[in-house]
Amino acid sequence: MGIERVEARIEAEFEQHLDRVRRFVRQPSISGEGVGMQEMAALVRDSIAGLGGGAEIVATPGWPVVYGAVDAGRPKTLLLYGMYDVQPVEGEDWEVPPFAGETVDLPRLGPSIVARGVYNTKGPLAGMFNVLEAIQRADGRLPVNVKFVVEGEEELGSRNLPAFVSAYRDKLGAHATYFAFYCQDPNGKPVLWLGVKGIQYFEVTCRGGAWGGPRTRGVHGSNAVWVGSPAWRLVRALATMMDDDEGIRVPGLRDDVVPPSAEDEALLASLVETFDPATHLSNWDAGRFKYPDDRAALLRHYLYDPTLNIDGIWGGYTGAAMKTLLPHEVRVKMDVRLVPNMEPERVRDALRAHLARLGREDISVHFYDGYPPAKTSIAEPSVQALLAAIRSLGREPEVWPHLAGTAPFYLFRRMLGQPFVAGGLGHGGRPHSPNEYATIDGMRLFERSVARFFYEFAGG
Amino acid sequence: MGIERVEARIEAEFEQHLDRVRRFVRQPSISGEGVGMQEMAALVRDSIAGLGGGAEIVATPGWPVVYGAVDAGRPKTLLLYGMYDVQPVEGEDWEVPPFAGETVDLPRLGPSIVARGVYNTKGPLAGMFNVLEAIQRADGRLPVNVKFVVEGEEELGSRNLPAFVSAYRDKLGAHATYFAFYCQDPNGKPVLWLGVKGIQYFEVTCRGGAWGGPRTRGVHGSNAVWVGSPAWRLVRALATMMDDDEGIRVPGLRDDVVPPSAEDEALLASLVETFDPATHLSNWDAGRFKYPDDRAALLRHYLYDPTLNIDGIWGGYTGAAMKTLLPHEVRVKMDVRLVPNMEPERVRDALRAHLARLGREDISVHFYDGYPPAKTSIAEPSVQALLAAIRSLGREPEVWPHLAGTAPFYLFRRMLGQPFVAGGLGHGGRPHSPNEYATIDGMRLFERSVARFFYEFAGG
Repeated sequence: MGIERVEARIEAEFEQHLDRVRRFVRQPSISGEGVGMQEMAALVRDSIAGLGGGAEIVATPGWPVVYGAVDAGRPKTLLLYGMYDVQPVEGEDWEVPPFAGETVDLPRLGPSIVARGVYNTKGPLAGMFNVLEAIQRADGRLPVNVKFVVEGEEELGSRNLPAFVSAYRDKLGAHATYFAFYCQDPNGKPVLWLGVKGIQYFEVTCRGGAWGGPRTRGVHGSNAVWVGSPAWRLVRALATMMDDDEGIRVPGLRDDVVPPSAEDEALLASLVETFDPATHLSNWDAGRFKYPDDRAALLRHYLYDPTLNIDGIWGGYTGAAMKTLLPHEVRVKMDVRLVPNMEPERVRDALRAHLARLGREDISVHFYDGYPPAKTSIAEPSVQALLAAIRSLGREPEVWPHLAGTAPFYLFRRMLGQPFVAGGLGHGGRPHSPNEYATIDGMRLFERSVARFFYEFAGG
Repeated sequence: MGIERVEARIEAEFEQHLDRVRRFVRQPSISGEGVGMQEMAALVRDSIAGLGGGAEIVATPGWPVVYGAVDAGRPKTLLLYGMYDVQPVEGEDWEVPPFAGETVDLPRLGPSIVARGVYNTKGPLAGMFNVLEAIQRADGRLPVNVKFVVEGEEELGSRNLPAFVSAYRDKLGAHATYFAFYCQDPNGKPVLWLGVKGIQYFEVTCRGGAWGGPRTRGVHGSNAVWVGSPAWRLVRALATMMDDDEGIRVPGLRDDVVPPSAEDEALLASLVETFDPATHLSNWDAGRFKYPDDRAALLRHYLYDPTLNIDGIWGGYTGAAMKTLLPHEVRVKMDVRLVPNMEPERVRDALRAHLARLGREDISVHFYDGYPPAKTSIAEPSVQALLAAIRSLGREPEVWPHLAGTAPFYLFRRMLGQPFVAGGLGHGGRPHSPNEYATIDGMRLFERSVARFFYEFAGG
């Protein structure tokens, strides 16, 4: 069996495999701040070229997409989606430098690499290249043809990916799209999801202008007695968008939400048996959920409720002292997570209409590119292949109808008509947070599960 | 006449006088950040000692008070209050470095020193020492005995000044307290005020805890669907404190407000004739007031309304990119300005009671030290002396019942029973803001007006 030789190879070469993970995370690639992006794209291109495939860095109006293909002369083809960008670390307090690729022995988890992007998602990306190389060295050629789309703007809402997919449509044909990811929870349980929510990120600004308020700079705080306050006006406007129980009060925002499908209901019926709310709370170090502790109800909130989140808010004096200031500008970053049947354009319309009804000419909104949710059926052969790969390693996956997180899978689903599948063994945590990590034992398991998935998908 | 020799001396020595102003502003003294405070206190002490007086740096639990006295053997004594601390510059965008003491030729204003503190208030402090030295050199001795209280925590709410005044009460006896300040508006009109508002500064924090929300770090924004948001909870709580027209909704906060006194009404009747709202708007680069453009009504709002201001708000991701985050902690700095008859303790009680009624155990409030307003009668000899000094230089002052700004004059008024007077010619602007400035021509006029005030107060 090819797979046995491949797994022996992974074991034998594993120290070098970790070196690639470290190389990937040591190269900062912060799309939002423009740090290290070209260098990281080159690392990805070189990894594809190293497999003997054609590889190119495709320019976009933003950060480039790395495209490539390895034709192994096989009947089945997989489109491997990945991302090479990571979230900023600004304002975060890390135990180790976020781009040093240091190994830390974490309590209860064991030796882990702690670095920005090691979990989300340069660790799995590096691991996938490790697997493909190991297969070629062990087995001569890959069991499936592969194509690569590795974008550099996932953390910016994949804003230039639609145009790329449209332009490269003829080169992206495949039987399925696969996104490799560490999917085990801290207790080792593999968690697979068959879809993602969509997202609409936006920024609301209130500043002084013709309506009043200081126009160009913060002024002495005593003037708040007769000069309007952009800060108060923003607070008042935000308060109209949410009630005290964090229920969204923007009319129309929930209009398109639909109940779970029949397939989702079937998945929920078994998910509720294994779903462990306490693990989730502990992941986020939260004391309790904002809903009563009923597992079935919690699941439905988590999967089928849209959110309206405040990601950040700032304005005026934020130092340690006592400074009185009437700020001229206050800003807030927000996002809506879209559940099945919601569309970003309709979300933008609802938000625009709500702000317009407030009649606040001092408030402006800037929408980032958004995208809709996407789902795949559990019956798809690619999904069944991943389930089989994981089960063959002695683990029973917990299958979620979708994830509350987001990824631009609608592109592959809608534009290319491909089913997609995401996951793999392995464990990481704290995405978008300080001390993001992935365990080293998990990385080894990840590589074995991905190799098995390729062989399962190829037909055994 | 002594005053003529003194003014000739000021003119002859003026370049050296400017050097002292530059020396004072080039020495950073940011009380809120603990930068340069001991060095600045030593500069002040040395200036007092240079007058031949006793001078000491008096330790407090915070930054020291500089105390000193020069006994000129005169019948009248003035207590000269000043402050040697300045506001932070963090987050501000300056045209010149804020502690370089550079001269900039400002449009319409002419050559000016642009620096933190040059207006508020190390420029006037340096100028007062220049005047006292010039008098001694020109006239042999001062026309009044002087005592000095120069504190280093004015920008922190003068939190240790009450204990100092209490401890030094026996050494602080004087006929009046004087605070030297540039009081001309950009058009050259001298604006005198006979009092100040009080202030209560505080900080409100909402963070995750037993109630829910992430407790120790911001987490992936998708969790906002089921984990509580400190940001939304703070916004909702703030919104209960203010209505859409920026009217304060905290019950009890306005309970102690009284109508203007008879003396205030008389001052208002003439003030309304010269009060120029447009100059004020232009000072703050605001498009309009938050009230209709009725001069009498505007004045009453400005002087007799308490404020509840948001000085700064911050939490979560505030960088340039698109980062989804559920922040674990959001903070806001706020202040209340107290008008006549309000007391800080009553303000704290009203705020505490309001937050308690909301039942938000996730919200905590920290009160900085506050103080009440203070006023002096226009009939006081010290006030009349300053008015005469300004008129003798050919300018007619506009007299305000008090200022919307704050200073701890209640200490001198209540604890020492002294009337106080504040002002002097000269012009500066942008206190607490980038590119704070004071004009050089104004500094010359300031010194002449202060010298004349000393002689007027001494009895001509």
